[in-house]
Amino acid sequence: MSKAYQLYYWPTIQGRGEFVRLALEEAGVPYADVARGKRGMDEMMGSLGGDLEDSPSFAPPVLRAGELLIGQTANILLYLGAHHGLAPRAEAGRLWAHQLQLTIADIVNEAHDSHHPISTNLYYEDQKKEAKARAKDFTATRIPKYLDYFEGVVQRNPGRGWHAVGSRLSYVDLSLFQLIEGLRYAFPKTMARLEPAYPGLLKVHAMVAARPRIAAYLKSKRRIAFNEDGIFRRYPELER
Amino acid sequence: MSKAYQLYYWPTIQGRGEFVRLALEEAGVPYADVARGKRGMDEMMGSLGGDLEDSPSFAPPVLRAGELLIGQTANILLYLGAHHGLAPRAEAGRLWAHQLQLTIADIVNEAHDSHHPISTNLYYEDQKKEAKARAKDFTATRIPKYLDYFEGVVQRNPGRGWHAVGSRLSYVDLSLFQLIEGLRYAFPKTMARLEPAYPGLLKVHAMVAARPRIAAYLKSKRRIAFNEDGIFRRYPELER
Repeated sequence: MSKAYQLYYWPTIQGRGEFVRLALEEAGVPYADVARGKRGMDEMMGSLGGDLEDSPSFAPPVLRAGELLIGQTANILLYLGAHHGLAPRAEAGRLWAHQLQLTIADIVNEAHDSHHPISTNLYYEDQKKEAKARAKDFTATRIPKYLDYFEGVVQRNPGRGWHAVGSRLSYVDLSLFQLIEGLRYAFPKTMARLEPAYPGLLKVHAMVAARPRIAAYLKSKRRIAFNEDGIFRRYPELER
Repeated sequence: MSKAYQLYYWPTIQGRGEFVRLALEEAGVPYADVARGKRGMDEMMGSLGGDLEDSPSFAPPVLRAGELLIGQTANILLYLGAHHGLAPRAEAGRLWAHQLQLTIADIVNEAHDSHHPISTNLYYEDQKKEAKARAKDFTATRIPKYLDYFEGVVQRNPGRGWHAVGSRLSYVDLSLFQLIEGLRYAFPKTMARLEPAYPGLLKVHAMVAARPRIAAYLKSKRRIAFNEDGIFRRYPELER
């Protein structure tokens, strides 16, 4: 393949791969979303390592970058941030951006578990009662706790232009955008109620949505719609 | 304080802070485990950022390294790995080690949720039934899936001396040691049954336990005992 990067991720969901897709789109670098092609799923499963690779991955997304095969969403963003100006270069800023990304990964995990609190091996329908209890806690206490934190980060950032880190766009901004999109999809009533308390995050969201490459991507067929196979799922019974 | 590093973490548990403590101990660098001193809890909560810091943390552990204040366990290890020879220097190895650490973080999160599947805000006793269901899945499918993966990593590593990455000790080895310790504590019957299938991981575990600084640390009072306030908890009713 001639593209600079090959992304291996589930072809029908945004999921964790979407944080990588947004970074690749903003970087404006050619990439193949491999599993969306013919034989894609075979290639995706192969990317996890099987018996071939020196660095097998536990789960997608996986990014092939030349000879490197990189797994774990935040780790892929660490790489892309360094190579495409999507994160500060100096150590302090680089670590700070990564810390924020890992905290986003934490709430994304919790968003997943709001519909799968017992087992990823069971259907949602088989853990619905427990999901109701977990989603109640997630919407009432966890989402506000995380958004309070990220709002504080944005408000306290001395940089210009409503960024999470410094005065330039970073993968953290892209990921905060995606987090807000996902939470709005999954928990629209909760977010409608909460959002007025987070003017800084809304500014970051609007800033990202207005980036020309991101705006073009969101309108394209490359952007998969949210659905109930992904991480952010809209099950009305999980919200009051 | 004159110590090179200040670690801020809960003073009565191993928890996620233990992955950092092991790296600091192996590095042989002076550090203060701040919350274990007088006024420690006040200082620990203060370390999260309050209104003072440029880089507040969502949760401990937090490491102060000179002017840097670093949050998120894997991010702290990324820093310590680079500064104390506990990870490869070259990009490929550095990313690979970090990917493995992030996968360890994933199973640690799942270990936590095996006793708190519904809410961190509720007592274990108030989610015991759901914990039984989740722990059943964790011990039957998730632990083997993760250990299969890590065993494959160790077996396929062409380096010498039973390390996860290359031929030298890295923070990944330390963290695999701690993961095995924690799983043995929390799920002794499960681990007794599973361990014979993981000879490579047991070699890594033995190699780490025999490191002089680690061996001394494990015998010291600095090593807090596992207990039922931590991430790895022994509740016999969660195991069959």
